Amino acid sequence: MTPNPRKDAYAEAGVDIAAGNEAVSRYKEVTQGWRHPGQLDAIGGFGGLFRIPGEDGRALVASADGVGTKILIAAEMRRYDSVGGDLVNHCVNDILVVNATPLFFLDYFAVGKLEPQVAAEVVRGCFEACRKNNCALLGGETAEMPGLYAPGHFDLAGTIVGIVDTKSVPDPNDVQPGDAIVGLPAHGLNTNGYTLARKLISPEEYHARFDGTTFGDALLAEHPSYYNDVRAIQRVAKVNAMSHITGGGLLENVPRTLPQTVKAVFEQSRWQIPPLFVELCKRGNLQHEERYRTFNMGIGYTLIVPLADAARAIEAVPGAKIVGWIEARRGDEPAVIVHPARPLDTSGSFDTSG
Amino acid sequence: MTPNPRKDAYAEAGVDIAAGNEAVSRYKEVTQGWRHPGQLDAIGGFGGLFRIPGEDGRALVASADGVGTKILIAAEMRRYDSVGGDLVNHCVNDILVVNATPLFFLDYFAVGKLEPQVAAEVVRGCFEACRKNNCALLGGETAEMPGLYAPGHFDLAGTIVGIVDTKSVPDPNDVQPGDAIVGLPAHGLNTNGYTLARKLISPEEYHARFDGTTFGDALLAEHPSYYNDVRAIQRVAKVNAMSHITGGGLLENVPRTLPQTVKAVFEQSRWQIPPLFVELCKRGNLQHEERYRTFNMGIGYTLIVPLADAARAIEAVPGAKIVGWIEARRGDEPAVIVHPARPLDTSGSFDTSG
Repeated sequence: MTPNPRKDAYAEAGVDIAAGNEAVSRYKEVTQGWRHPGQLDAIGGFGGLFRIPGEDGRALVASADGVGTKILIAAEMRRYDSVGGDLVNHCVNDILVVNATPLFFLDYFAVGKLEPQVAAEVVRGCFEACRKNNCALLGGETAEMPGLYAPGHFDLAGTIVGIVDTKSVPDPNDVQPGDAIVGLPAHGLNTNGYTLARKLISPEEYHARFDGTTFGDALLAEHPSYYNDVRAIQRVAKVNAMSHITGGGLLENVPRTLPQTVKAVFEQSRWQIPPLFVELCKRGNLQHEERYRTFNMGIGYTLIVPLADAARAIEAVPGAKIVGWIEARRGDEPAVIVHPARPLDTSGSFDTSG
Repeated sequence: MTPNPRKDAYAEAGVDIAAGNEAVSRYKEVTQGWRHPGQLDAIGGFGGLFRIPGEDGRALVASADGVGTKILIAAEMRRYDSVGGDLVNHCVNDILVVNATPLFFLDYFAVGKLEPQVAAEVVRGCFEACRKNNCALLGGETAEMPGLYAPGHFDLAGTIVGIVDTKSVPDPNDVQPGDAIVGLPAHGLNTNGYTLARKLISPEEYHARFDGTTFGDALLAEHPSYYNDVRAIQRVAKVNAMSHITGGGLLENVPRTLPQTVKAVFEQSRWQIPPLFVELCKRGNLQHEERYRTFNMGIGYTLIVPLADAARAIEAVPGAKIVGWIEARRGDEPAVIVHPARPLDTSGSFDTSG
């Protein structure tokens, strides 16, 4: 019921920031009169928590999401097997932020004209991703709605339910200045920034070569599940907070699970910006803040760990890097600062100081 | 992941029966290679069952659904407060078939251009219905997707999760010839048959008077929650099976929870067909089978009870009626027979023998 702050990130592509914020505040008004006693406070709003009736220790964690306009690229490319994985993995990551283990997922697939082959490819993508995450594909709805969707268009959304021992939900108050921020890599846009990306890369270019593949394939790169990586890090490090870097990027998602007393400081020189982001930022002449608010810029998931555990954490997962630190936050300082890298000669890196 | 058989009911409005059936069979192929050990066999497919980890006795029950093309009428009428209730109640009823008590619901609201006032009305409808069903509105997703939805259009879907003691899930094998079928009333189309209804009643007529209201209001009549009615009946009667009469009508939904050895025989003279159905059937010149496959025809939910309990059951709920019986089924008899009423002089009834 709460729109993800991601909407703000699309401002430059014509999506209305003010409308998104107003919708959020109206939702709060609308729903403030009553609260089910089973509901628990959720941290950061990545997933909603609900106490299992008759139990003290465990809660269900649920999250709903859609694929967004990434599906318009998939539809244009007639590639239907990947969006299911994007969606399932997105949902898995969202509830992972509160340490939940997935139980089951349900999809909602809506089209103007039902093509069974297409529908089966979409569901296959959901199913295979569910299987990899050890999550049941428990049900779903396929809706054929002539008049609502244009020919060839479809929408895909889903809901995941997981389970967590409430004692194991990260407590933002454990986050301390000096903690390290571990970043897990995103090789593509995951599931955010596509309204802008579609403005900057036209369908005519989807089959053109780019960075050893095509623009289309680069744009449709799978949103990975960070489940196994996070579990591997948790085996060797205390994890004080986590964030899934969805719409709103590092700037909006990292603060969702931080206390007000600290800020996250990223050093962009510590990781490589994947070429697709470089290309998009150049084409759109995106300034520093727009870049980090619209795109994940190569970091798909963050974990905040005590500095003493940081080396073990990054050794546990190939590609994991220390990308920044937690510092004390004073007065009206922003909750996230990204220090741009100097112009680098490394292929794929670029000057983000503009 | 399994499309509801409702699609078949829309054949006459241009929705493809064969495509729906083929999608279902392809989904089965796609998903047959693996099954999560927590999944339990679901009865009739109204909701999926998943065992609560570490427990023997209880299962979660989940169902995903959309509002379907009823939303196009709501959008045309600019009435946004009712579709949320339709959706939540639909979901509540679906899991009620396996005797589940709702825990929480999550919505998915997608638009081309986000209007906060509209979004808030839609969410308000979901929230109020959740509250009435004692179900948390635990989360949701609002997606603004320029390019996918036409201006003024939106889609609304949702997922419900409930809980059930697995011993209390109705066992179809308890259904016996001689049992009575108790019907709970639907005053309108609930959430099915709208693709056809929109062909038969044009938007220009939505504000025209009809049956003490307008066509538009009659078409948007709320899909009720049958939760309290069902619980009231269960207090006084054994309930051997239940069905939520969604797309596919009595003909397709009642057999979903019956054993192969019996058939359901409905006597249409035992209940009043609401005027909107009479009007739609006349306009569409719908024949007997089309009527009962496309629309609920005034019965929104059925409960099968031992004959000895039937009188108590209908006394427990105003408007509940005995609408038919269970009989032994032989050879290739259909699973459902609806005996039409003779032409009646009662307002709102009509000859269904055509």
